[in-house]
Amino acid sequence: MLPESAQRQEELGLLQESAKSAFLAGADGLQLVEKQIRASLGSDAAVLTEISQYLLGLGGKRIRPLLAVLAARLFLTKKSPSAELPSALIEAAAGIELIHMATLLHDDIIDKSPTRRSKPSAYVKFGLAETLLTGDFLLVKAFGLCAKLDRYIIEQTENACIALTEGEVLEGTLANGRDLSLDSYLDIIGKKTASLFGLATAVGAHCAQEDLAVRSQLFEFGYSAGRAFQMVDDILDITADADLLGKPSGTDLRQGTPSLINILWLQSGESFAEEFFARTENTPEECLRAQEHLLNSDILGVARDIAKKEAEHAKKQLTSLAPESIDSEIQGALLALVDYTIHRAL
Amino acid sequence: MLPESAQRQEELGLLQESAKSAFLAGADGLQLVEKQIRASLGSDAAVLTEISQYLLGLGGKRIRPLLAVLAARLFLTKKSPSAELPSALIEAAAGIELIHMATLLHDDIIDKSPTRRSKPSAYVKFGLAETLLTGDFLLVKAFGLCAKLDRYIIEQTENACIALTEGEVLEGTLANGRDLSLDSYLDIIGKKTASLFGLATAVGAHCAQEDLAVRSQLFEFGYSAGRAFQMVDDILDITADADLLGKPSGTDLRQGTPSLINILWLQSGESFAEEFFARTENTPEECLRAQEHLLNSDILGVARDIAKKEAEHAKKQLTSLAPESIDSEIQGALLALVDYTIHRAL
Repeated sequence: MLPESAQRQEELGLLQESAKSAFLAGADGLQLVEKQIRASLGSDAAVLTEISQYLLGLGGKRIRPLLAVLAARLFLTKKSPSAELPSALIEAAAGIELIHMATLLHDDIIDKSPTRRSKPSAYVKFGLAETLLTGDFLLVKAFGLCAKLDRYIIEQTENACIALTEGEVLEGTLANGRDLSLDSYLDIIGKKTASLFGLATAVGAHCAQEDLAVRSQLFEFGYSAGRAFQMVDDILDITADADLLGKPSGTDLRQGTPSLINILWLQSGESFAEEFFARTENTPEECLRAQEHLLNSDILGVARDIAKKEAEHAKKQLTSLAPESIDSEIQGALLALVDYTIHRAL
Repeated sequence: MLPESAQRQEELGLLQESAKSAFLAGADGLQLVEKQIRASLGSDAAVLTEISQYLLGLGGKRIRPLLAVLAARLFLTKKSPSAELPSALIEAAAGIELIHMATLLHDDIIDKSPTRRSKPSAYVKFGLAETLLTGDFLLVKAFGLCAKLDRYIIEQTENACIALTEGEVLEGTLANGRDLSLDSYLDIIGKKTASLFGLATAVGAHCAQEDLAVRSQLFEFGYSAGRAFQMVDDILDITADADLLGKPSGTDLRQGTPSLINILWLQSGESFAEEFFARTENTPEECLRAQEHLLNSDILGVARDIAKKEAEHAKKQLTSLAPESIDSEIQGALLALVDYTIHRAL
């Protein structure tokens, strides 16, 4: 929807290439993770496997396992360039993606989403009961994988999962309340999105035998990258078209989600915003008018600045690591991944 | 609804007294478990705690933790009469009850149940999103508790949770198919009910340092007692009144659940049964007519015999344990618990 200059297109192309290098650097690990995930989906109840495989087949970037793999490689490649990834890392990364998949299934039920990645959602295709139980099944399988690992991973996984459910609940509560500050927004996306990103990168460092200080720094990197990722998602909901999103744009406006855009708009004090959010439901025309208005407003710029700042904070966690302890190519790949994420929303 | 003779009332009274002794023998352990459960319910999202506490406050017999406590005491009291229960047992027993609570919340959503234990269900009182997420929250908390324990408990817990979701799915699938055999019924209730009972008793033996053979025998005891428990539930759905059930009787008939009674009725070849289950929905009058018919039919007797046989199998697991390795009073309490369960349905 946004007019894009040729220069911006070129920049984005270059960044896309760098981001690809990140996926290439993690490709071997991701293949092992994918295999581990598939091995976890077998069940005596065929529909549990069917729904899980359907969701898996819808694609997705596997960004969380990628982060876990790259966070481990960041240190391991330096220690021994030909080192294989530890099996604990593969299992934990698979567990993290299974947790993410479980939340997608349960979210679709809660949001009554008709589509996911441009295809019918599992909820619509298979029904509420089966989709809910498959979410439970994936959650249990994920925990089964992570629980076999050491206490650090178990505790971090539990914390991240608790944060996920709390984030979802708080988002729902605040969507009704409309009394959202930027701080509570940051808290919510920290819980519902960033916690699992942070888990992935912390577990990566942990499986590379790094100490608690480094694990914490890697957690902070993933957590902050996850917040930036969610902010970009919130921006794209206004600026991108349905093809890119895999669902109609403007969803956050229609549903009154406490997204970054909605919060900033409401905080701007514009009477349009107050009237828009005061109504329990807005017509499609009103939503479209709000979206057009936002596309041409300062709000977008403010949102982008906040997202950029968050991304800078994430990158700083990586650039401040002792250079002699890390592989600079993997570091570059991770930085490119963050840059690419952000530039999609610029 | 059933006419009860004075003699039967007296028998039931005596059994109730014996069963009470089981609760008394486990009372100290149950208190610790209850404390552990309450300690697990805190959350940054107040509604997760509120819904969990609401469900906990609806009561319930805490039969699964009780079985875990008594299974541990069965051996521990013999070894050292004044021995305290190991904290691992308390944590695992609390985890098992939390898993059970999570399934109750998700089941109420799936069944759209208006009531639970004669009160509004959490689903009706708090809504779908909050109830679903609280189920996830409890599942994660449960796993967090069990994952801190040893590998045996983790694996058994994962197996039981997978079985739970599979049992639920298979029940739903078969309810639609109506091609249910007694074998597939036993498989389903084994998964959806008995697996958690078996987990409780196996974990009890495990925490009392018993070897794999004894743990397996205790698993078999709990598993079989769990199947008997579910069969009795299926019978009571026809014979008991709403006060006892905490919900209207005849639910299985109305919903076409593959319950023991429904399967036996369908297998009897009665044209009434075939017509009844051929309809996608039956009027309240038709359901009542079916219930009255079943109350006066041989089906009930057949169902009771199957349940009794299952209970005998459970009890045999206890009576065949080496007498010198167990406390006979606790053994008696566990046997009384099984007897009481069964006699409620006679």
